[in-house]
Amino acid sequence: MSMMGSDAACPERLVMEHVTSRWGTLVLIALLDRPYRFGALRREIGGVSEKMLAQTLRTLERDGLVHRDARPVIPPRVDYSLTGLGREAAEQVRGLARWTERRMAAVERSREAYDAARS
Amino acid sequence: MSMMGSDAACPERLVMEHVTSRWGTLVLIALLDRPYRFGALRREIGGVSEKMLAQTLRTLERDGLVHRDARPVIPPRVDYSLTGLGREAAEQVRGLARWTERRMAAVERSREAYDAARS
Repeated sequence: MSMMGSDAACPERLVMEHVTSRWGTLVLIALLDRPYRFGALRREIGGVSEKMLAQTLRTLERDGLVHRDARPVIPPRVDYSLTGLGREAAEQVRGLARWTERRMAAVERSREAYDAARS
Repeated sequence: MSMMGSDAACPERLVMEHVTSRWGTLVLIALLDRPYRFGALRREIGGVSEKMLAQTLRTLERDGLVHRDARPVIPPRVDYSLTGLGREAAEQVRGLARWTERRMAAVERSREAYDAARS
């Protein structure tokens, strides 16, 4: 089929995984509002370890979605923001996240009916 | 933050994972075109084992996104199609997949620049 490779190594697949990963989603959506410093972003997201957040930001920076701005001041100051490309990705991901929240009750009802018919 | 729980067990997170999973994405996008019987869907997607496709379809059926229509004929005939809810999810996912394909060259260039600056 034309859309997305079904090859595990296909690069589109990897980008899709980065932006829809648990922390990738939350980082992109938070940065749609405003730039964040590392610590403030970590508090905003909640429940993410320093290591996982740093790794998520590095992956998104490498993909060209997040811009890392390190200022040569004391103490060092690093701001993270979305690039133009990152804003596009974040808007797609926010659309999917909002759809999921809006329709979650219908999904839950379907699961209950499915399980009830099989128990 | 308000959008998507950061709890691993949060149900929105699971739905997001189902629809953006490797095979979930491809099944939803294929079914946007037309209903498929199991074997034809498997050929359309390519590279998916019978077991994985059956499991993906079961998960999407349980979430209320895919409708499974088993006809009592000989030989048995089973058609898979999108529900209304599934069509909504599939359109979101197709939007994200199309964005990824359209912008993949920019992502690749960013990765090369990132790696070159660090080697």
